[in-house]
Amino acid sequence: MVQFWYEFASSYSYPAAMRIGRLARESGIEIEWRPFLLGPLFKEMQGLSDSPFNAFPPKGRYMWRDLERICEAEEIPFVKPKKFPHNGLAAARLALVGLSEGWGEVFTRLVFSANFARGEDISDPAVLEPLVTEAGGDTRKARVRANSEEIKDRLKSNVDQARARGIFGAPSFVCDDGELFWGNDRLEQALAWSKQH
Amino acid sequence: MVQFWYEFASSYSYPAAMRIGRLARESGIEIEWRPFLLGPLFKEMQGLSDSPFNAFPPKGRYMWRDLERICEAEEIPFVKPKKFPHNGLAAARLALVGLSEGWGEVFTRLVFSANFARGEDISDPAVLEPLVTEAGGDTRKARVRANSEEIKDRLKSNVDQARARGIFGAPSFVCDDGELFWGNDRLEQALAWSKQH
Repeated sequence: MVQFWYEFASSYSYPAAMRIGRLARESGIEIEWRPFLLGPLFKEMQGLSDSPFNAFPPKGRYMWRDLERICEAEEIPFVKPKKFPHNGLAAARLALVGLSEGWGEVFTRLVFSANFARGEDISDPAVLEPLVTEAGGDTRKARVRANSEEIKDRLKSNVDQARARGIFGAPSFVCDDGELFWGNDRLEQALAWSKQH
Repeated sequence: MVQFWYEFASSYSYPAAMRIGRLARESGIEIEWRPFLLGPLFKEMQGLSDSPFNAFPPKGRYMWRDLERICEAEEIPFVKPKKFPHNGLAAARLALVGLSEGWGEVFTRLVFSANFARGEDISDPAVLEPLVTEAGGDTRKARVRANSEEIKDRLKSNVDQARARGIFGAPSFVCDDGELFWGNDRLEQALAWSKQH
């Protein structure tokens, strides 16, 4: 099994989320979907209160061009969002509800597409809630459960577990033996590692 | 042609320097070797006076493991240096001398091997000067020229040109049309881009 650690605001998590399902099926590897938040880790590790891609403009300019090239090569639709990053907290809580009810993977891809294929604001419930329905969830019930202590705690626990596993960015992949891979461009390597170990 | 921008202190520049000669020959692409210094860019861009891999320990731990995996896969000898980073200034100046005299590419590989295959301190003239001889240079003459205004200015100019091209890390690759690729893991893509454009 490979844990897929992703943050809805993270640009490079987008191609990983769109690719991992197919690649995992081809490799016969099971994926554990692990939404988490990068904000607290960036803050405590690097003292950043914004994305490093905004804090360091040359890095940001490069990232957008690199992401555009990746999406073109992978035939993944891509539009640079007008605002970046969109806060991924509400989406992450809904995803945790969905993952426990069987519609979380589809919802995850729909949210990433809203953010990076259409440039929509995924912190807006008006954007998110139709995606719950589209993924097969019950919007009203999901909204209530997403704000429950159970789900809030689960998201906090994911952030704590990410930190404990040495994760500092997204997407990250963790194999059963603890081996960590960081970045969309390490997805294939993580699956191969998992198969060999 | 592809410009290869490298910093002798940079860990990921090591596998790139060891691989680029062969890959470029196989692609029929000419390489322009461009040593530069990352320190000034990290300082002005991120306010860092140390490597980000030291400033942010989880990132550093990951980098060493990732580099170990890369070197193993590419059959490149690797030893984690006791001290990191070793200041690359003296090596960069000598490399500029060597590149203008025909022994710079070999010298570059020898310095990277000293740093990352044997863990030697490449800021130490006693480490560097035998490598000049081994690469085919005249140590005494190279030492004098490395401290000339001509070579100092050339290195400063490389840092300025790196900044102007949007470079923020090493290794970086710049194609004739200005397309920028960052990281050892983008080397193949940079060569392919250069061939197609």
